[in-house]
Amino acid sequence: MSTENTVTAGKTPVTVIGLGNMGSALAATLLENGHPTTVWNRSAAKAKPLVDRGARLAATPEEAVAASPLILVCVLDHDALHTVLDPVAESLAGSLAESLAGSLAGSLAGSLAGKALVNVTSGSPEQADEAAAWAAPLGLGYLDGAIMTTPPGVGNPEMMFLYSGSAEVFEEHRAALAVLGDPLYLGREPGRASLYDVALLGLMWSTFTGWLHGTALVGADATKAADFTPVAIRWMTHAVAGFLATYAPQVDAGHYPGDDATVDVQIATVGHLIHAAADRGIDNALPELLKATMERASAAGHGSDSYASVIEVLRGQRQDDGTRV
Amino acid sequence: MSTENTVTAGKTPVTVIGLGNMGSALAATLLENGHPTTVWNRSAAKAKPLVDRGARLAATPEEAVAASPLILVCVLDHDALHTVLDPVAESLAGSLAESLAGSLAGSLAGSLAGKALVNVTSGSPEQADEAAAWAAPLGLGYLDGAIMTTPPGVGNPEMMFLYSGSAEVFEEHRAALAVLGDPLYLGREPGRASLYDVALLGLMWSTFTGWLHGTALVGADATKAADFTPVAIRWMTHAVAGFLATYAPQVDAGHYPGDDATVDVQIATVGHLIHAAADRGIDNALPELLKATMERASAAGHGSDSYASVIEVLRGQRQDDGTRV
Ligand SMILES: NC(=O)c1ccc[n+]([C@@H]2O[C@H](COP(=O)([O-])OP(=O)(O)OC[C@H]3O[C@@H](n4cnc5c(N)ncnc54)[C@H](OP(=O)(O)O)[C@@H]3O)[C@@H](O)[C@H]2O)c1
Ligand SMILES: NC(=O)c1ccc[n+]([C@@H]2O[C@H](COP(=O)([O-])OP(=O)(O)OC[C@H]3O[C@@H](n4cnc5c(N)ncnc54)[C@H](OP(=O)(O)O)[C@@H]3O)[C@@H](O)[C@H]2O)c1
Repeated sequence: MSTENTVTAGKTPVTVIGLGNMGSALAATLLENGHPTTVWNRSAAKAKPLVDRGARLAATPEEAVAASPLILVCVLDHDALHTVLDPVAESLAGSLAESLAGSLAGSLAGSLAGKALVNVTSGSPEQADEAAAWAAPLGLGYLDGAIMTTPPGVGNPEMMFLYSGSAEVFEEHRAALAVLGDPLYLGREPGRASLYDVALLGLMWSTFTGWLHGTALVGADATKAADFTPVAIRWMTHAVAGFLATYAPQVDAGHYPGDDATVDVQIATVGHLIHAAADRGIDNALPELLKATMERASAAGHGSDSYASVIEVLRGQRQDDGTRV
Repeated sequence: MSTENTVTAGKTPVTVIGLGNMGSALAATLLENGHPTTVWNRSAAKAKPLVDRGARLAATPEEAVAASPLILVCVLDHDALHTVLDPVAESLAGSLAESLAGSLAGSLAGSLAGKALVNVTSGSPEQADEAAAWAAPLGLGYLDGAIMTTPPGVGNPEMMFLYSGSAEVFEEHRAALAVLGDPLYLGREPGRASLYDVALLGLMWSTFTGWLHGTALVGADATKAADFTPVAIRWMTHAVAGFLATYAPQVDAGHYPGDDATVDVQIATVGHLIHAAADRGIDNALPELLKATMERASAAGHGSDSYASVIEVLRGQRQDDGTRV
């Protein structure tokens, strides 16, 4: 199947820059779905399995960028992104100068204007803002992305890919992005996908550590992780997820009716956890912190409120001028 | 429908002692499912709505215990359980003395022997052990229980009720217990349901607090909890739950291949979370603790392992004699 045929069949040509674990999974999934795929990686050897499956290997980042209207970048971090793309922008500035001097060929071939850069490299919201500001004067549409799965989850439509930035890029390339996972658009602020990303990772680490603490606790009494974990997963996916759905509107309303379980009742119960874990020699730093946090909420007047009221002590206090302390 | 007819129809008569929020939900669900239900509560007024729906009100705990082969106790705590049941056991010891002296009637009516006590009062594993030891010489079968939902979840077969203790009681009364929620039997050690209970609550509080931290973070940039939470729930129920299923066998094997994401990579990423939250005035005690815990795992040689290896630093170190320090 030639590139031309596939384009005729409506599959957008895509370039993938960065072929680590994640970039390779992205490129492989695009190839499987019939997208003409051009790849580039600092260490060219990593392109081999993809070329074997039909990818076109670009010799330089410039060539990679020139090859497709949609360019996915998935490198280690923000600095690596600039290491790869800054020279491309500079060489285009050079060829733009040439074109202004009358030699148009080079500039047209490699122009960034009108192309879409989708940056799925992890980073901070501020880095996403910076990258969007960098792309704008080049005429390059910028969409920031956060991949909420590991490489084996790429291509699974249950897995979320969060995007923010250019709505035009998102709409134009939604079909290509959808082959990677379920694309969720979070709005025009470039940093929002990264902000959700770190917020969701924080939830993940909290959940992991709570699960490991519980697993260590029951493990001290000879229960296997493989026996405890299905119960923990059922608890999380049915009961705990339901509590979050109940508490979210309470957070938005700033009103936390404690009609299911109050902060004070949970302070009493966390004592059982700490006691049982201490008896079994388990590190209690996490439940001690949770208890202290609940106690701060109670001291702030939320003892009879639901657990959702704990957000009041996590948020920075606003000062009179609206800034937080 | 008389008690006799219902017994004929195979529904076990059940007594519920303790009619707070949870005990009332248990009794109401048993009534809805056609179980002849006798109730008792310290403050008798709470029985009224249940009596209106067909419950029989016992005048004393003795009468309540005498009424049914299956006795569910759902009071505030372990002390309340003894406050209610110790006098029953003592009065039976009295009537047993009478019966040994020739007057058999009283003892047969109120005998505890052969009955089943299912204690769904929350408590520690040690309290469950103590209650089982208390019941044994009375000839009372003892099953300890942990209700993994709130009162509105009672009767929903997706909600888990954990039980441990007498296998005979569990098997004999499984049908009655199943109307309350999905009954899971965890083995003969009475304390195991309570141990799972506190372990799962620890997971819940960790998840709640991680979610509230993330909600505060995106909230600082004007994202509503109602917008963030469905994404957080999807992340938890699909991606995070999948990671736990992957990590559980790693914990049992004591071998933590870091082929998806290593501890060291996550240490780098948690820095983005802490930075973004600090910029927005959010309390970072939780992510700082998570980071410190990951760093301890890395320092212990698990930098290239998966997050599951963090359990090694949560567990107490075993001493040469097998005890933990
Ligand atoms: N793996 C996951 O589960 C996962 C999940 C979500 C998001 N992500 C994000 O996806 C991005 C890539 O992750 P990964 O798992 O693919 O990591 P990886 O396997 O370590 O690959 C890193 C990639 O970045 C390139 N790179 C690093 N420094 C560079 C530089 N200075 N100049 C040019 N290229 C450079 C590497 O090129 P070489 O091959 O030449 O070293 C390689 O292609 C990261 O931002 C990560 O946070 C990963
Ligand atoms: N609610 C939940 O979401 C939930 C979930 C799982 C487990 N549980 C557990 O279920 C149990 C009951 O919880 P609940 O929500 O029903 O609590 P609740 O509404 O506060 O009711 C407490 C019950 O205990 C009785 N009680 C307290 N002290 C007593 C004493 N000294 N002597 C006799 N009776 C006494 C109360 O009687 P009076 O009416 O006379 O005060 C009432 O029936 C607790 O162990 C709780 O941890 C609750």
